[in-house]
Formats: sequence, C-alpha cells, structure tokens
Amino acid sequence: MADEPAPISYEDLAAIEDDFSEIDTEMMRKQYDASTATYARRAEAVTKIENFWSLVLEQAPPEIDQYIHSHDSKLISEHLTGVEVTRFELDEKGPAGDPRSLRIRLEFSPNEVFSDRVLEKTFWYRRASDDWTGLISEPVKIHWKKGKDLSEGLTDGAIALFEARNKGGSMSRKGIPEYYAMEDKVEHWNGANTSFFTWFGFVSGRRYVSAKESETATAAYQQRRVARRRGEKVDVPVYAENQVSDEEAEDDSAVEVHDAGEELAVAFAEDLWPDAIKLFTQAQEMGDMSDPEFEEDDPDDDVDGNDEPVDIRSLVQGTGKGKSRDGNGPPAKRAKR
Amino acid sequence: MADEPAPISYEDLAAIEDDFSEIDTEMMRKQYDASTATYARRAEAVTKIENFWSLVLEQAPPEIDQYIHSHDSKLISEHLTGVEVTRFELDEKGPAGDPRSLRIRLEFSPNEVFSDRVLEKTFWYRRASDDWTGLISEPVKIHWKKGKDLSEGLTDGAIALFEARNKGGSMSRKGIPEYYAMEDKVEHWNGANTSFFTWFGFVSGRRYVSAKESETATAAYQQRRVARRRGEKVDVPVYAENQVSDEEAEDDSAVEVHDAGEELAVAFAEDLWPDAIKLFTQAQEMGDMSDPEFEEDDPDDDVDGNDEPVDIRSLVQGTGKGKSRDGNGPPAKRAKR
Repeated sequence: MADEPAPISYEDLAAIEDDFSEIDTEMMRKQYDASTATYARRAEAVTKIENFWSLVLEQAPPEIDQYIHSHDSKLISEHLTGVEVTRFELDEKGPAGDPRSLRIRLEFSPNEVFSDRVLEKTFWYRRASDDWTGLISEPVKIHWKKGKDLSEGLTDGAIALFEARNKGGSMSRKGIPEYYAMEDKVEHWNGANTSFFTWFGFVSGRRYVSAKESETATAAYQQRRVARRRGEKVDVPVYAENQVSDEEAEDDSAVEVHDAGEELAVAFAEDLWPDAIKLFTQAQEMGDMSDPEFEEDDPDDDVDGNDEPVDIRSLVQGTGKGKSRDGNGPPAKRAKR
Repeated sequence: MADEPAPISYEDLAAIEDDFSEIDTEMMRKQYDASTATYARRAEAVTKIENFWSLVLEQAPPEIDQYIHSHDSKLISEHLTGVEVTRFELDEKGPAGDPRSLRIRLEFSPNEVFSDRVLEKTFWYRRASDDWTGLISEPVKIHWKKGKDLSEGLTDGAIALFEARNKGGSMSRKGIPEYYAMEDKVEHWNGANTSFFTWFGFVSGRRYVSAKESETATAAYQQRRVARRRGEKVDVPVYAENQVSDEEAEDDSAVEVHDAGEELAVAFAEDLWPDAIKLFTQAQEMGDMSDPEFEEDDPDDDVDGNDEPVDIRSLVQGTGKGKSRDGNGPPAKRAKR
C-alpha cells in the first residue's frame, strides 16, 4: 500500500462540495447587490408595457409552464399585472440573511376567480436536524370566489392542516382529522392535475422545518466544517428514527399538495425573473407570428429588437382605465424575419 | 397623450439587458477567482479516484449526452483520464480578459482510435461587426488511427477549409474546393450523426469572427452604451448586406460540422464542470443499482454520501499500472437506499 496515494472518502468530496456551495452562496449575495438597481430600472420600464408579465408567463420555462393549466392561463393572461422576486432575507437582515430564501409576489387585476389582488409566497432556505436542506414554505390563503376554487380544496386544506399542527405544537403530527382529510385529497389531487395556484399551498419537498431547528442544525453543520478544516475526523449526523414516533416520520409527501413546489420557486427566481425581457421579446415574436389581432395594433412594430429602435406604443398602458387592445391603428403588414 | 407615461422602446429594454449582461460577466470573473483554489483541491482529490471523469461523463447533462454515441461512450469510459475547463483569458490577461471565453481539455490513455493524449479546444467570446455575439473556435486536429476516424472526415475537412481560408486571407471565402468538399460532407454528416469528437472541428454557430473584428465591434458597442447612458439617441448597426459579395454572406452553416458546438462548450463549463462531484456520485449510485461486478469491489462502500465517511478504496488508483477493477474483495451485500 505504500505506493498508493492516500485514499479519498465521500466525506472528502462532500467537504469540497460544501466549499463550492459556500462560494455560490456568497456570489448570490454579490449578484443580488450588484443587480438591485438594474432590476428597479426594469420594474419601472415594464410598468409602461401593457401585459408585460402575462406575456412573460406565456413563455415561462417548462419547470413553470407544465403547471399552468388552461384555466390558469386564461386568468394569468387577462389579470396578471405584476411579478416580483426578492431574496428578502438580504433585504431584511443584510449579510446575516440567506440569499437562497425567496419571496415571490404576483399581482392581479380584479377577476372572477379570487378576490386577492396580491398573492405572495415566501420560501425559507432551511437545514433539518438530519442535514437535509431545501426551501420550505407556509400555505398561503387564496380567497376563492364561490365555486371557483381551482385547487380542488387543496390550498384551504393545506392551511387547515398547517394551523391545526401549529396549534397542537408539532408540525409533524399525523394522527389528526386535518391530516387524514389531506391524505384523502392528495391521493387524487395535486399541483400537476389541478391548477398553478395550488402551488400556494406548498409546504416542503420533505417536511416542515422550523426556524429554530434550522438554526441549531446550521450551527452544528458549521462546527463540523470548521473541525473538518482542521483535519479532524467528523461524524455526519444520521437521522435517528427512534427519536420520533412512527406517525412523525420524516416524509410528509402524503399530504403535500405540490410535488415540485421548490423547483417551481427556483425556476421563478433563477430563470423567469432574470430572463423576463428575453421571454417578453419571445412572446412578442410568437404573437407576431400567430395573432392577427395583435398585428393590427401597431403597424410599425418590429420585434427583432436588433435592427432599429422602435416604440412599443401598442403596449404602452393608457390612462389605466382599461387594458383591452382594441387595435385603433389600421391593419397593416409588417416585416417578418 | 399627456396622461400617458413616456413610451418605451425595444432599445430601452435592450439597454437594460446590456446592463444585466455586464453584471453577469463581472460576476463570472469574481466566481472564477473565488473558486480557483477549490477547483485545484478537487483536481488533486479526484486524481485518486479511478475513472472519476469517465463516470462523470456517463452522467453528463443532456446537452452533452445527446452527442455521445455508443462508440464514443466506449472510448470515453475506457480511456478518458482527465477533464479541465478554464476561463483562460482571465488566467492570461487578468481583468482585460473576457470570462466567457473557454478552454476545454480532455486527457486520454493510449487507445485504438486516435494517437492524441490530449484534445484541447478553445472558444473565444467575440462580437461581430453586426453585433452578433457568441463563442467561436478553430478546428482541432485529431490524429485518427487508420480507418478509425469517427467523424467521417469532418474534423480533417474542417481543418482543410480553415487553413485554405486562412492562407487565402478571407475567413468567409466560399468559392474554393475545400468549401465545396465540406458542403457535400455536411449535407450528410454532422455532430448529431457521427461522433462526439466531431465537436473538435466546430468553428461557429454563425461564421468565423476574428480577434480584430471583435475588438473593433466591441469598442463601437461600448461607445454606444456610453452614449445611450448620456441619454443620446443611438443607432444600432445593421448588417450591410451589400458590403460583401454573396459568396461571403454571414451564415456559414452549410460547412459547419457541429450545429450545437457552442451549447456543448457552455454545458461543459456551466454544468458538467461545476457539478462533477454530484455527477460522479450519481454515477456511483447508478452503478450500484445495475452493475453486479461493481458491488464486489468494495463491500463497505455506501453511496449515500450522507450517512458516514467511507473510503472509496475500490476507486483509488493503484500503482498506475492498470485501471481494471478486478474486485479483490469478497462479494457482499450493501445497504441500499
């Protein structure tokens, strides 16, 4: 064995991955700080473009688009007026905040489906006692109009369970009526076969993790990292199954209303949000190719974006009284690529 | 119109996109600097793991994997010994370098297919006179052994054309025998139906752009950005088709051996390279599930990576004389997840 290099363990590789992860997190912070002003400039610019965000959502990446059903699509295209994604812990706590935590805010004009004008969902990046990490959230109330609940009762059911557990003092409690009710529902319904808005009921891809649990686990994790750097042998925590009763086991998927709630949030933050102008331009090009009404709006419009400066007059919001594109201009042919 | 906000143009949106792009580029620089030491540590660690890179390639993301044909796969799994991705302009020119330029270096053990031990491909981020931007490259010679050219002559043909154009003083020249020869070949063969290694013949998704053309175009672009920031009206360059003869038109796709050469390079740099340890771990898990021989190697191995530190002894290179995994340990069952 003398000729062999020292063996390497999965733990050694994990330590390297931890370092990369720390660098990535630090870069997220820097990127957020560096781009805040430009995002503000974009936010101001796009308020002048009618339907900007509904057109962006039309071109949403597959991770999001696959959950937008036809009734969602109609609602979004007619009533979504604003989108905002923030890494709110950086805004609130500065350097002490985790840049991976996200808040996604959607604004709507009055509509027939729900009475909310704003739906806002918060995702906290947390570490569980067994070292699982990910985004967890709390169910958000949607005030569905009578007979209009697109989620088939999933958002309300998720809130009922969350509140019952919260009151009962254990977020992993299973033997309660609200749990059984959700278990029954989730057997048939979820984000994939109901509505995009079911996502607002999402809690976790694993189970709920409290701020306190996360804090303790993170402190322990940091201690292990430091020890490992000093070259000490470090034990990685193994989830002790006998510490909790069976009914409080780790996995809460039987009552989770959305299997991909975390992926959806990340796609909003990492794809749709930074790429919004690109997606909008794509939507314009698609509209140009397929929508004859749209063409009537603006005979001079050219979607190329590379050839020459063009006013997007047809997209400028009017006095704010209406959002219809009636097409006041004469029908005209436009150059196509 | 007095009540309406000032209209917004595609140019205004493009200016915002330019700012985002500048921020992204700056972040790439910082990320590269911040992670160099960790990449070096990883490089050292993985030399101790036999087949690390061939296992990583086995789990390559779809952007790469779709171009790895079965004969490539065999060659890679048996002979790929090293991968390195560098943003070489940062190494060479410091802050004056463009972080988007890439160099991808693959190392191989002696094999039956080509005599090269290193295949290295460089991609320069360049801006054309019409403001097109992207990665361009130069064809790399692969010394195929007799009768073993997996690219169906594409890599040699690409080099012949490149050299003939270079000698002739015009990189867009079309009316030459080397052009017609490639046009004929590319009608039938390309990276999608020959070999992963055809990628080494890639030049551009559009056409070749020289360092000089890029420098001039970049200076003009920067001037426009500055003017635009001062609030001046700026004309965007339109490609003047009458400036070059028909045979020198912009698009060189009729002789390009690989349609997705740039996407492949970016997938190497942004996915495979940073995610290598994750992909390796995935490959281990896949191997565990499907390869009975592999199980014999290391009875104590546990692929979880989360439970406890485990030596990857079976993967440690021996004296360097051979790479076979003979499985000296006794067959044994291992815990599965």
